[in-house]
Amino acid sequence: MVRIELENRLDKPTSLHVHGLSKLVFQDGIPEIEPTPSIKPGESYVYQFPAWQAGTFFYHAGDPSQIPQGLLGPFIVLPNENQLTGGEIPYRDYVLVLQQWDIPQEKIGEITPGVYKPRKFDTAPNFFTINGKAFPETEGLRTKYGKKIRIRFINKSSASHSMHVHGHDFQVVSVNGFPRYNIYDDTINVASGQRIDIEFLSINPGSLPINGTKTFHKRIMGKHQVVW
Amino acid sequence: MVRIELENRLDKPTSLHVHGLSKLVFQDGIPEIEPTPSIKPGESYVYQFPAWQAGTFFYHAGDPSQIPQGLLGPFIVLPNENQLTGGEIPYRDYVLVLQQWDIPQEKIGEITPGVYKPRKFDTAPNFFTINGKAFPETEGLRTKYGKKIRIRFINKSSASHSMHVHGHDFQVVSVNGFPRYNIYDDTINVASGQRIDIEFLSINPGSLPINGTKTFHKRIMGKHQVVW
Amino acid sequence: MVRIELENRLDKPTSLHVHGLSKLVFQDGIPEIEPTPSIKPGESYVYQFPAWQAGTFFYHAGDPSQIPQGLLGPFIVLPNENQLTGGEIPYRDYVLVLQQWDIPQEKIGEITPGVYKPRKFDTAPNFFTINGKAFPETEGLRTKYGKKIRIRFINKSSASHSMHVHGHDFQVVSVNGFPRYNIYDDTINVASGQRIDIEFLSINPGSLPINGTKTFHKRIMGKHQVVW
Repeated sequence: MVRIELENRLDKPTSLHVHGLSKLVFQDGIPEIEPTPSIKPGESYVYQFPAWQAGTFFYHAGDPSQIPQGLLGPFIVLPNENQLTGGEIPYRDYVLVLQQWDIPQEKIGEITPGVYKPRKFDTAPNFFTINGKAFPETEGLRTKYGKKIRIRFINKSSASHSMHVHGHDFQVVSVNGFPRYNIYDDTINVASGQRIDIEFLSINPGSLPINGTKTFHKRIMGKHQVVW
Repeated sequence: MVRIELENRLDKPTSLHVHGLSKLVFQDGIPEIEPTPSIKPGESYVYQFPAWQAGTFFYHAGDPSQIPQGLLGPFIVLPNENQLTGGEIPYRDYVLVLQQWDIPQEKIGEITPGVYKPRKFDTAPNFFTINGKAFPETEGLRTKYGKKIRIRFINKSSASHSMHVHGHDFQVVSVNGFPRYNIYDDTINVASGQRIDIEFLSINPGSLPINGTKTFHKRIMGKHQVVW
Repeated sequence: MVRIELENRLDKPTSLHVHGLSKLVFQDGIPEIEPTPSIKPGESYVYQFPAWQAGTFFYHAGDPSQIPQGLLGPFIVLPNENQLTGGEIPYRDYVLVLQQWDIPQEKIGEITPGVYKPRKFDTAPNFFTINGKAFPETEGLRTKYGKKIRIRFINKSSASHSMHVHGHDFQVVSVNGFPRYNIYDDTINVASGQRIDIEFLSINPGSLPINGTKTFHKRIMGKHQVVW
């Protein structure tokens, strides 16, 4: 059973939705439709539901205009030991949250350091991040030769992002928390709201990119480093 | 055999394409390429082809600029009784047509009642509907505790829409009229021109949203109500 | 083993990335991350790697801003004879490269002949091509009644394109170079950077469209002609 106490220190009402992991209607966090509370400034509420499914999820504010301002994050459910039916535990298990931003002064293809207030909706995105950072500030994912690495892509932006891994093909092991079998690929389309888990054996030493395939995507780029 | 008589009461030529259900070239309704007629104002034409495949399709005008103005609709082929190999007939079978609009005076995130002429192509959409209605005007999909519900998503807009069902995970049973097996999910990407059928058992009483996952998608939201 | 000598006759540095076909880090062609050279004007470099996988790939400049200006192309690996496990060799094997363009003076829905310099990134595309041509200049794909045809869709644009084949349903036989089995469809979403191979038997004589499903897609349209 997961217990999350949300304390609202904003000056506006909010609520919390965990995407996936079906739960009772008053714990799902969308007050416009469900009998779930809109939590007022200064108030708090306890969300409580079973984590009945191992996999990759995320949480975000029920109010969609609060999401681009930061009210979201990954929500990972690890399997119990007795749920590990075969399958090697990966050496490294990385989470990559993909986001896009619609920033007033920014031009696609240029970065001017500064503080910008993102527009309410990211309909004309001009800035792209992985875990909140743009290339070359994105952090390397380190692995070791011969070891298995897992990457969990989470897309909470308003567009699909097609992610390409260099130097290694991969296996798609899970889509939105549900297992997939015998799917091999090198470029996976992660649609808005989706989570796709991939795994591969680190067999190509060096420093290699993981990037979005759109031409203006250069900054939605990370790297994975396979070391001996 | 399906027989559709199209009578053109517009002041411009038109034609009818049923998307899917491969048919003879002069019945497919794309006059620019095929030897199929462009039906002039005041004229009529009979389309005739076998409904050889059970599943979810849609029809639209062959002229793409007539589509955002309303010349489209769902086209559902139900199976014969002897085609129901196992599988329970759903208690409710709902069709949700997803559309987006590019309206001159409308701002994303606000609804001003009025009459607007949609722009020819929906390249900068600012309004989203399910079956022609925006939330909160969308109708609830009613079901009963313990019963199976089927939802047929049809996307005839110019973007993908990632649809998320709250309170229930679902099984993807058909993509573009062709069966799919053993695919479970909670967020399905319905690309332009695609139809995806999902099914689930109504096991979570209450009123729960079905929504697009883009932040500006709030109005591409419906609800399903599970009652005892 | 593939050996490609790249001679840079531009006035800017460049490099070559073959998308897919995992290769050693210094042959993958992304100098910003890998120890692979940025090839200066007047210089040349030899890329060398095994074509270990039969399938549909493409190559492009490592610098994303050079891609819309033409530095890309299909890269097809045919199977060895002993890799043809069952499966008929198609009568015709066509490659369709999907692209979109952001051109200064062009309006969606109109073509004014002229010479235009495409904008650096195709974020507001107003022109769409298959193998560099817009309908009705696109070439017909000819096949013969009763013969199998294969079409390899390659999308190197910054959006997904949903491709619909008229008159024939098809089988998806490969995604990004990896085989797929028992998937039948009529509308396939080809995401940015993806390659999808389809096959079908030519059983419907006539001239039929293959088109993108977005309303402004009219020019991303080709035709296939089944002749007796």
